[in-house]
Amino acid sequence: MASKPWEQLGANFVQHYYQLFDSNRVNLADIYTDESCLTWEGEGFQGKNAIMEKINSLPFKVIQHIITAQDHQLTPDSCVLSMVMGQLKADEDLVMGFHQMFLLKNVQNKWICSNDVFRLSLHNFGS
Amino acid sequence: MASKPWEQLGANFVQHYYQLFDSNRVNLADIYTDESCLTWEGEGFQGKNAIMEKINSLPFKVIQHIITAQDHQLTPDSCVLSMVMGQLKADEDLVMGFHQMFLLKNVQNKWICSNDVFRLSLHNFGS
Repeated sequence: MASKPWEQLGANFVQHYYQLFDSNRVNLADIYTDESCLTWEGEGFQGKNAIMEKINSLPFKVIQHIITAQDHQLTPDSCVLSMVMGQLKADEDLVMGFHQMFLLKNVQNKWICSNDVFRLSLHNFGS
Repeated sequence: MASKPWEQLGANFVQHYYQLFDSNRVNLADIYTDESCLTWEGEGFQGKNAIMEKINSLPFKVIQHIITAQDHQLTPDSCVLSMVMGQLKADEDLVMGFHQMFLLKNVQNKWICSNDVFRLSLHNFGS
């Protein structure tokens, strides 16, 4: 099935993001600008430097993300909104569910991530 | 702790949305416009009519949402981006995890939902 242009763009971004995250996450700096926002497990960071400081300070050495589902939409301001659900394994920890959302914006002919929200799926206490 | 204006706006929207959804979901029509997009479990709908047709056709009679976590960010285009994680119980089904994302935009002095993505958290086959 032919996908819409923003679906392809969102899917390419998602693949690129987790590939960088799982191989060498310092390289994620390229996707953020000084106006980007990250909310990581409820904690907010603004700007490339603050975001990368947070990402680089995460305590695991080895991480692997597996995508379960991803959805992409075009916004009224010609951005691409992507929502990802997946599972991750950090070092020797148990596999955990997560979800993450990206807003992608074209700035000076380059697609950057203006907004990024990450949460572990930790509410299923009974499961 | 004093929250930022967009956090308050996002939190108010989220409360309003699930209150309407759980009491009488036909009233959700007010929050969408003809440009709004909904992706529901990977299936896309555009415009208030198509969205409401989908929401009204959902098979359960009684539903209850419980919010586990919510995050709100301001976007570069002065929209509010909200990501919600929670649990829902539909009729006599088991409790299920879900996550949902909203992009809220001010159109003619009214905040509407331009983008809405919903997914059940169904990837934890092993749990």
